[in-house]
Amino acid sequence: MKRITVKKPILQNNDVAAAQIRRKLDQAGIFAVNIMASPGAGKTSVILETITALNHEYRIAVIEGDVVDIDVNKVKGLGVPVSLANTGGACHLDAWMVERSLRLLPLRHISLLIVENVGNLICPANFAIGTHKNVVIASVPEGDDKPLKYPGMFRGADVVILNKTDYLKHSDFDMQKFSKSIKTVNPDVTILPLSCKNKSGVNDWISWIKQQADSRL
Amino acid sequence: MKRITVKKPILQNNDVAAAQIRRKLDQAGIFAVNIMASPGAGKTSVILETITALNHEYRIAVIEGDVVDIDVNKVKGLGVPVSLANTGGACHLDAWMVERSLRLLPLRHISLLIVENVGNLICPANFAIGTHKNVVIASVPEGDDKPLKYPGMFRGADVVILNKTDYLKHSDFDMQKFSKSIKTVNPDVTILPLSCKNKSGVNDWISWIKQQADSRL
Repeated sequence: MKRITVKKPILQNNDVAAAQIRRKLDQAGIFAVNIMASPGAGKTSVILETITALNHEYRIAVIEGDVVDIDVNKVKGLGVPVSLANTGGACHLDAWMVERSLRLLPLRHISLLIVENVGNLICPANFAIGTHKNVVIASVPEGDDKPLKYPGMFRGADVVILNKTDYLKHSDFDMQKFSKSIKTVNPDVTILPLSCKNKSGVNDWISWIKQQADSRL
Repeated sequence: MKRITVKKPILQNNDVAAAQIRRKLDQAGIFAVNIMASPGAGKTSVILETITALNHEYRIAVIEGDVVDIDVNKVKGLGVPVSLANTGGACHLDAWMVERSLRLLPLRHISLLIVENVGNLICPANFAIGTHKNVVIASVPEGDDKPLKYPGMFRGADVVILNKTDYLKHSDFDMQKFSKSIKTVNPDVTILPLSCKNKSGVNDWISWIKQQADSRL
């Protein structure tokens, strides 16, 4: 007799764990965002701007998916609770890593959770981590063709931040081409151009995240 | 009786396939480089500069690890043979993808093979693809702390190109900090700062690759 072992796909198990996280967040009244981007697009800079703008209005906590504590220390410097989800060099966060990090945070005292995923435009798109919204950060120096080259990531985004717009005047980045290439893979996405350096456009991002968080109160 | 099934790890199988590719390249007298970087660091731009500088001296071919043919068409525009290793959205090239692409190239008429890996600073570092040298491209706008955050990639580099140095004057990028952070993980690596935009430093890269290719003739 032949034996066939049917194993649950790893992604399906991850989805189950992510759904558990979502329930836990909802029960605690926490709105959570998953911040994804390629290395150096400005995930940490956007997070620091967000904390600075909203720290007195929301009880913010951060999970940092990383192998080193460089970004953890930057966030700690602003006085909010932060938990390092040490990926051990993995290319993405998964639901179990986030679950372990959540246990180290004072959930009852949090209303806004920001998760900084691993710097990677491919793998993180495949792993739900229980957050409510996916934020993808692109940046001007990366070029205007990235959405077509990394469609999986941009397809799953609820909002796309275009960071480092201060470089626009030194670059041949074509904003129309960028918007068009995003709309090809994700027609309804919100695009928010901003610069963490000169603060232009940051308010629009802050309004977006406030609106999202408040709609869940 | 308990049965224990010992399976070969997938990376070990990949190493075997990579070693076969290396033998094939060596037999054909081809020098091959694996170009790795995060999205938008300038892999394709560096490859186009290399082709322009060396096309009359070497018989160049390119393998593009991608899901779309945007970069393939840019390379084709310079009149060299190019093969798309369609990754189907995978986060890295592996030896089998490269092997399949090699079959589509006229090996007897090639002396320099350039492989553009998937834009990702993590996964490609774990998969040998039979090439002789690993080239990692960083870029100024990504920031000077990347080598500490993506140590696996920088540890395996034979040379690190720092692209987009034309942005240095608009940025707080600290060259000393960057060099120091690379040397922490890879003390002997060669660092080549350049700008594909204003061509500064490109000659040093061309000298490096010529020297490497010629030492194998």
